[in-house]
Order: sequence, then C-alpha cells, then structure tokens
Amino acid sequence: MRSHYCGQVNESLVDQEVTLCGWVNRRRDLGGLIFLDLRDVKGLVQVVIDPDFKALFETANKLKHEFCIQLTGKVRARPESQVNKNMATGAVEILASDMTILNGSAPLPLSIDGHQNNSEEQRLKYRYLDLRRTEMTERMKFRAKVTSEIRRYLDDNDFLDIETPILTKATPEGARDYLVPSRTYPGQFFALPQSPQLFKQLLMMSGLDRYYQIVKCFRDEDLRADRQPEFTQIDIETSFMTEDQVMALTEDMTRTLFKKLLNVDLGEFPRMTFAEAMTKYGSDKPDLRNPLEMVDVADLLKDVEFAVFSGPANDPKGRVAALKVPEGAAKFSRKNIDELTKFVGIYGAKGLAWLKVNDLAKGIEGLQSPILKFLPEATALAIIERTGAQTGDIIFFGSDKYSVVSEAIGALRLKIGEELGLVEDCWKPLWVVDFPMFEETNDGGLTPLHHPFTSPTGISAEELKANPETALSNAYDMVLNGCEVGGGSVRIHQQEMQAAVFEILGIGEEEAEDKFGFLLEALKYGTPPHAGLAFGLDRLVMLMTGASSIRDVMAFPKTTTAACPLTNAPGFANPQQVTELGIQVVPQLDDGSDEEE
Amino acid sequence: MRSHYCGQVNESLVDQEVTLCGWVNRRRDLGGLIFLDLRDVKGLVQVVIDPDFKALFETANKLKHEFCIQLTGKVRARPESQVNKNMATGAVEILASDMTILNGSAPLPLSIDGHQNNSEEQRLKYRYLDLRRTEMTERMKFRAKVTSEIRRYLDDNDFLDIETPILTKATPEGARDYLVPSRTYPGQFFALPQSPQLFKQLLMMSGLDRYYQIVKCFRDEDLRADRQPEFTQIDIETSFMTEDQVMALTEDMTRTLFKKLLNVDLGEFPRMTFAEAMTKYGSDKPDLRNPLEMVDVADLLKDVEFAVFSGPANDPKGRVAALKVPEGAAKFSRKNIDELTKFVGIYGAKGLAWLKVNDLAKGIEGLQSPILKFLPEATALAIIERTGAQTGDIIFFGSDKYSVVSEAIGALRLKIGEELGLVEDCWKPLWVVDFPMFEETNDGGLTPLHHPFTSPTGISAEELKANPETALSNAYDMVLNGCEVGGGSVRIHQQEMQAAVFEILGIGEEEAEDKFGFLLEALKYGTPPHAGLAFGLDRLVMLMTGASSIRDVMAFPKTTTAACPLTNAPGFANPQQVTELGIQVVPQLDDGSDEEE
Repeated sequence: MRSHYCGQVNESLVDQEVTLCGWVNRRRDLGGLIFLDLRDVKGLVQVVIDPDFKALFETANKLKHEFCIQLTGKVRARPESQVNKNMATGAVEILASDMTILNGSAPLPLSIDGHQNNSEEQRLKYRYLDLRRTEMTERMKFRAKVTSEIRRYLDDNDFLDIETPILTKATPEGARDYLVPSRTYPGQFFALPQSPQLFKQLLMMSGLDRYYQIVKCFRDEDLRADRQPEFTQIDIETSFMTEDQVMALTEDMTRTLFKKLLNVDLGEFPRMTFAEAMTKYGSDKPDLRNPLEMVDVADLLKDVEFAVFSGPANDPKGRVAALKVPEGAAKFSRKNIDELTKFVGIYGAKGLAWLKVNDLAKGIEGLQSPILKFLPEATALAIIERTGAQTGDIIFFGSDKYSVVSEAIGALRLKIGEELGLVEDCWKPLWVVDFPMFEETNDGGLTPLHHPFTSPTGISAEELKANPETALSNAYDMVLNGCEVGGGSVRIHQQEMQAAVFEILGIGEEEAEDKFGFLLEALKYGTPPHAGLAFGLDRLVMLMTGASSIRDVMAFPKTTTAACPLTNAPGFANPQQVTELGIQVVPQLDDGSDEEE
Repeated sequence: MRSHYCGQVNESLVDQEVTLCGWVNRRRDLGGLIFLDLRDVKGLVQVVIDPDFKALFETANKLKHEFCIQLTGKVRARPESQVNKNMATGAVEILASDMTILNGSAPLPLSIDGHQNNSEEQRLKYRYLDLRRTEMTERMKFRAKVTSEIRRYLDDNDFLDIETPILTKATPEGARDYLVPSRTYPGQFFALPQSPQLFKQLLMMSGLDRYYQIVKCFRDEDLRADRQPEFTQIDIETSFMTEDQVMALTEDMTRTLFKKLLNVDLGEFPRMTFAEAMTKYGSDKPDLRNPLEMVDVADLLKDVEFAVFSGPANDPKGRVAALKVPEGAAKFSRKNIDELTKFVGIYGAKGLAWLKVNDLAKGIEGLQSPILKFLPEATALAIIERTGAQTGDIIFFGSDKYSVVSEAIGALRLKIGEELGLVEDCWKPLWVVDFPMFEETNDGGLTPLHHPFTSPTGISAEELKANPETALSNAYDMVLNGCEVGGGSVRIHQQEMQAAVFEILGIGEEEAEDKFGFLLEALKYGTPPHAGLAFGLDRLVMLMTGASSIRDVMAFPKTTTAACPLTNAPGFANPQQVTELGIQVVPQLDDGSDEEE
C-alpha cells in the first residue's frame, strides 16, 4: 500500500513518484494551495496539493487533523528559502497526484502535537492517541531496540531464552502476590510470579546452564511513581560462573547496549562495598554524578555535652554524619535551612544541625552555627579538618539512628546536589558489593537483604548460624546514576546452607517444607554452583530515554491505583464464573470503598 | 570455572589440558581404571581416572550417578578400537589430573538416561531432572533457537517488540478467562488475556505499524493433550498491508525458520478455500501428507429409497460423502469395519456404510456391500465413477448432518491414512482462506468463525447485515501437516462495520459499550487498515521437534488438570490476603471435589 515511509522521503528520491500512508498531522491552506504534514511511524513529510488537480483538491479539502490517508505524488526539492533544517525530510516536499481517505477522524479528545498538557488520566484513557506523539513513539521504538540488542547479546553468548510459568505458586520475594483462583481446585489459588527466581534456579539444576528471559513480573503493592503492578525483568542465570564472571558479562552487556544505542562509553564499572556506599552516600544506590559526600564524625562527638550528638555517637546503632557543601555558606539562608529541616523530617530526622565556615582564617571565630556553643573548640576544628571544609562552605549534620541519618542525609545530599546544579550530566555506573546477608526487622528478627537464596561469602552453614548479623552475601547490584538497574547474587547450591538460612529467618521446618519443599528436594540431586542477575527493563529504558516515569516507557501502563482507564480494568466479573471458582465477592459496605483499602 | 563444554571436546584439543564442569552421567570401573561419562548442556565426554593419581582416584571413587563435578585433564585420542562414532566426542577421552566434587547427589527418583518409562506425573514433579534428559535439553535449546530466529527476522523487518498488559479486562475470544481479584477495587477483577488482540489493534491506531510480541496467553478451559492454561503466541500485527502481503511475510518467515533450523525447504504454500478443505478433507486444517480425499455424492443419492442416504442428501444442512481407500478392500475385515464404525461414532456418526470393489470388470456383480440392495445399479456405478474406484478399493460413506459427516469422515481419513502407512514423511504447509464470517450456534444464533474483529471480504456493513450467513471473511489460517500453526485476518477498521458485526452477533448497544466501548471509541480517530496473525509457538515447536505433546516443549507445563506437581500450585492462600481482595472462599462440601468441577 506504500512505497516509502513518510519519514524516509529525502533528496535521493527527487523526481520519483512515491506512495505514502499516514495521518494528517497538520493542514494549512496557503496561497490557494493545501499543505499537509503527513505523519507515520518514521516521521513527517510535507505534501502540497495544487488546485489544478481538481478531484484531488476536492478530496484534500475534506481532510482534517488525524485523517488517515494514502497518497501518491512526486518528490521535489523545496525552494532554498523553504528548506526546514529541523526536519529530516525538510529539504523536499511531495506534489500530490492521487489520494485516498482511508479513514476519517473525529476531533481528538487530547492534543498530540507540540507541548501537550494532557492529564495523566486522559493520556492513559486515550493511550492509542497519546502513543501517536513523536516522543512516545520514539520511546516505544527505543524500548524495542533495547530488548532486541539484549537478546542478540545473550543469544550470541549461548544463553537460552526459556519461558517460566506465570500461573505459579506464591513466591517469597516479600511483596504481596497477585492471586488467581483455580477453577479445577476451587478455593485454591495460583500466584503471579514476583520473579522467576526459583524456576531459573531449577533450570540450573536441569543443566541448562545459561538462561535468560525478558519476562513480566507482578507485585500487588501500593504504587509509587516508579512502580507498576506488572513490570518487566531481564532475567539471567548461569551455572559454573563465579560472581566476577557474572558481573563482567552483564557489565559488558550493559556497556555494549549503551555504546550501540546511545553511543555512550560507560567504561569499566567501579566497585564499591555496601559499607562504603552507606558511609559516603547514605544509600546502597549512590548517584556518583553528585560530588557531595557524607563523612562520619561520631568518634569526634562521643564526649560532647550536647546529647543530640553524644547520644547517637555512643550508640552502636546510632550514626552522626556530616555533609559538607562547598561554597554553600552564602547559599543557604535561615529560611532555606528551615525548609531543609522539614525535608529531612520526612525521613524521620528530628532536626538539621549546620555549621557555616565564614572565615577559616579566624579559627573558631570564623564559624557560625547554633550548635557551636555545645562544641569544644578542638571538636569544632576537628570536624572542619575531617570534612576538609574551606572558607565559604557549609556543613550539615545528621545524628540519630543509623538508618535515619543515612536516609535523611543521603536524601539531603541528592536534593542539594540537584538544587545547586552540582549533578554532572553524564553516566555513572557502579557495582555495589559485599552486602550484609540480613538486616534487622522492626521486631528484632532478621530478614534477607536480597532474598533467602543468596549465598553468604566464604563461610560454612555452621558459621553463618553462629553469626548471621555480620555475614556478608555474594550479592551485587548494578547502580546507574542513583538507580538500581540490576541486582543479583551467587545462589545457595547446597541443601545444608539453604536450610540454615531458613532457620535463621525463623522459617520452621514445616513452613520450609510447605513453601520451599521442592527447592530443598531439588538441592539433593547434584545442584551446580549458580549465580544470576535481574535487570529492571522499565527503569533501564526510562533512564536511557530520559523519561521521568516508567509509565512513559510502557505502552499500556496502569494508574497509581492499579487501574486501566483505557479498558476500565479491573471490572465486575460474571457471577456465574466467580461461583465456579469456589469464591464469592464480599459485599462492600461503602460505595466509595475503592480508596479505602 | 571451565575452559570448554564437555560436548565440545574433540580431536582439535588433543594434548591440551581442559577444565570441564558437569554431571556424572555414567561410571564404570574397568581394568583398575574408572571411566566416567561427564555430561553438560552440550553433550557427553569420556573421562579416564588412573589409580596412579592416588588422591584423585580416591575422590573419583566417591562419585555416583549425577554428582556435579569440576574436572581438569589432558585430552587424548582414543585407541582406534575404542572410538565411538555415535558420540560427538567419541574420538577422544580425557585423562583426569584434578577433580572437585561440586555437589553430591542422592539416587534419582526417576531415570534420566536411555529409554525411560517415568510417568508423566513423576516427570512433572521432578521436572528439573526430566529436563536433564538429552531429548528434553535439546528441545529447550531448539525452542530458544526458534524464538531467536523469529525475533531476528521480525526485528530485521522493522517490527517493534511491544509488551501488552497481562492484567487486563476480560477478552472476547470465547474461552473462559482467568480472573485476578483487585485489591485496590475489592470485588472487581482483572482478567488474564486470551490474546493481546485488542491491544495490538490499539497499537495500530497509535501508528506503530509493525508490531510483534512473543507473549503468554491464558485460557481457563478443560485441558486436552495439546492445551495448556498458559501458552505462547507469536503475535503479529501490521497496518497498511494487504491480506496477501501479511500472508507473504509470515509465510516467508516460516520458510526461513524451517530452512535455518531444519534445513527444510517448505516451498511456496498453496492456498485452499475453506469450502474446498471441508469438501475434500472434512477439516479446515487438512493434513495434505495424507493422500485420501473425500468426495461428495449427495446429488447421486437424492432419490434412493434408503432414508439413511436420501434424508441427508435432500437436507440443505445434510451431507453425504464418500472416502475411497485404494487397495483397501482386502485390508478391512468385518471386524475392522465394526471398529471403524465405533470410531466414527465418537464424532456422532450413527453408522458407517461401506462398499468393496472386488472386481470392477464384473460391474455391479463385482461389488460387495450391505447397502447394495438399497442402491439402483446406475447409482452404484455412478458412485464408482465419481470416486474413481478401482478393483481392490473400498469406499466408506458418511451420511448425516454436514458437520457430523465432515468431522467423522475427516477423522476416519486421518485414522486410515495413519494405520495403512499412507502418510508421507514430509512437510505440507498450506493457507486456508475464504472462511465464512459466521457459523451457526446451537441455539440458531451466529458466532464468529474467527473473532468479532475480523473484516468481511468486499462488502459493506449494510450488505453484511442483510446476508451475514453467506459472507466470507478476510481471514487466513496457516496449516502444517494437519495442525493450525497460525491464524489471522484483516481487521475491521471502521466503526460502522464493527457495530454491524456486534449487531449481527446479538451484542446489544449497552453490552458493546460495556465490553468494547474503548474499541468503538478508538475507531473514530483515523484508524488505519490493519491486519495480523498469531502463531501458536508451542505447537510450532512441537511439530518441528517431533514431540508428541506441547508439554514436551515447555520447561514447566501443567498437568491436564491445570496443576503443577513440582511446586504444588495451586494452593491455599493466606486468609488475610484473600480478605483484602474483597472475596471469600466458599467452603467445599466434598473433600474430593477437585475432580468434580
């Protein structure tokens, strides 16, 4: 039905006849002529309709915005003065000789050209129109390129694309599963997978030693900006490869992807321990584009009389950290600092101490801070020395429980970096390694920092059971510009170790048998050492395209309340069908109950 | 951890040291030496352990079936007499110098080498062991090659891989949907898609004019041998392409796949109308490897006194068909024919008339049949002439409702072809085209033969409404060796036509608005002409690998009662979680109720 794409018509086709199909992106009537911008998936081209072609001109006169047409005409060079250098096809135009209206269009309910200010709800309800916007079209094309390149890379490296079930058993990732009632077993449920973790480990037990899958995963969590009920994972697992080999391979894959699609050389990824990341950045996914770093100062403040500092400084679970902002003294007014105090409050910080270095040459006299009165001179100067502060700098302090300080000052670091324009425009990948095996839960128990199939580094099951709090895991996260784009680990491949981890997690034998019996059984039969990684595809594409939400790189995302305004899903089901599933709907007391769950 | 794969060790490596990882497939102790067959994903290699290496020999002495080991040794040529030509690595063996036991193994609960007779249940429960069998490993590798080649083909042809939602609204394909309760909207449900049909059409409306996806689809149907609750579709949709172009492209894709993976040239696919396929083969997916053909003989039998024939022969909805089996007269005893009569009874046929041509030279005297007494001589000879029967042939007859005769004699054709060894060992692809738009339902209504978005051939909405029964659709099925491997159609792209189809199907305006309102709305905004196709990946791989069930080409299939013996899914859910979904489980009266739904 067409000889070329609109976006591909260029000077090499001058004097040739082309047939195009597309949409009327714009129509202008000028000097007796009709000018159209015709659009298809590859771009726009200008079409001229001359009244000399009478029937054609009459047809063209009916055209409105977003009519779908088929058009034949001769390509000609535009006059020099009319060349549009901002348009790939801007040097040519098409003098139409024939046209068929393939379909008309009613006026669109949302704007698709220029700077649109359609609401998110409108964009999702009319997603098929929203996707016509060049920006969205390009994102969909880019995403397809990403998956295509990744598949080629993995195929070429002997990885097998193997599908794992979507209807499966509840998985132990920790988030809430989506449940699917079974009709054959009324009252019982499948769960949609939060990841194919156990299946990919089973594939390693099968000897299929290089697996990958680009696969949908599901979490029924309360949504945030960058969460969706279903999301896509690039899932990888290997046998007989060390941690370093898996990291090298997936790093090379990422490097290759960035080189091919963005012509960006990511270089070799540095490695940073979890401990260092927390100390310097208060985060296990540090954004290294931001030059600000935190410094621990608890040891300097153990003996001060100011309990806000000395309390956490003497508490093994406390933290006192300083964040120096070079040349920041003049940039933060009392009002600014009040706002920042509110900001860190979101993360649980009860206040935000600060110290301005107005003139270092004046020693303690050159410092300005509400807390100065609590600090011995030597302590204040030791802090200056520790942070390397210079005249004109400001230092912020966090002092509280370890996690509160890390989160609050880590977030403050990002905020100040952003607001002062300190964040470099570049790509900063790194690996974070040497994670703790477990973290403490609120009730004093232990929970895996990754998942319960992650192996500890260099210790036996007995040693792990003796000191689980200090054990490090063979886990590694790939972090890019402050986002975790991938995470993985060496898995446990011996039954004794797996049983030890379940025991530490307080999973009793019966529960372990019920939930993971098949895994423990499978570990009996010559399970190979194996390791893997999973990338968040949506987030990776979001970063690579500069989109501000993963919703913008998904064709049909859901709202933040997990609904689809386009199809009106979810909806009420056929009562007969519900009955067949052995379940019944509980009448909701309140019609407005949607919001209350 | 390894320098080579086991299956890759060959003569080019003689005298080199290699390190391998894999499983002990077999151990033999012979002449003081230990011989191992070591297995990995690429094959087997023989390893020799010499007692001269004392520590090594001691380790090797612990080895049992399916121990997972890492092994280093020197490759050497086998003595001429010991070369195993049936083994890719059969010309060499490895003299081990070092070995690490990576993991031990308990005795396997099922056999994984040689001719196994594990039950289906055992195979699924221990799927990770079943997949170690070479046959299964090779199928998984082959399937990955199929998807890889198809993706490359489609990527290279400018198709975009775009993901569509798994949590969506009930789809209209006709089978039962799997439902997923929504927690945010208690009492409401998502449905898992039976296909991404509407989403891919919406993508065409977005202008993303070449879409594909290899995607999971879901049907909650009672399972048969070749059905699974979740299955995988190669889903394709295009805009601005004619029926012929879509068929040519997907045909070329299939041809390319067979050439690359099986070195089979499928040639150009013939086309056959639905009418011809039903007439000759009683099926819309004829197996052309089977030379037997049906012939209609109703016109010859309208006036016979035998009501079994004349009834259907005079009924516009009846059919009388003959199936000639060349040289079959001597092959079917009365007992055989009784069995065939039972067989066609499965399809609703009330009997199976037959006629043997014992000696054509003797005219009517040379014929043998219990129904001969009901047939005038001229009629009998006319049947002989119509079927082209020769001396030694047998003719079977079906006379009943059209659908019963087609199904019963169609099935008989396949059965006899198989049993007499008439089915050629080759590949016979074809396109079946010109399907009716609708077929009659039991209650006299109409139902779409494909789906309600299929466009009719060459008629207006008004014409379609006037004569829906005779309308043909722009649909096409790709059939290979009697299996439908793909099916598609040109879609309706105009609102008026879509509304007409809904009207014909008895879908009222309110229901149409409720179920398909978004589609009807979307059709308003310049929807392009579009067409597509979907392949059943599982079935395609099953055919290509010669597997007897789609279960054998899926890594983790379910049983025929839609359960997973490996993970024990489905299972009982956390009651708290069920409550959050606004549903409750209805107590089942009978513990054995599983079987009764």
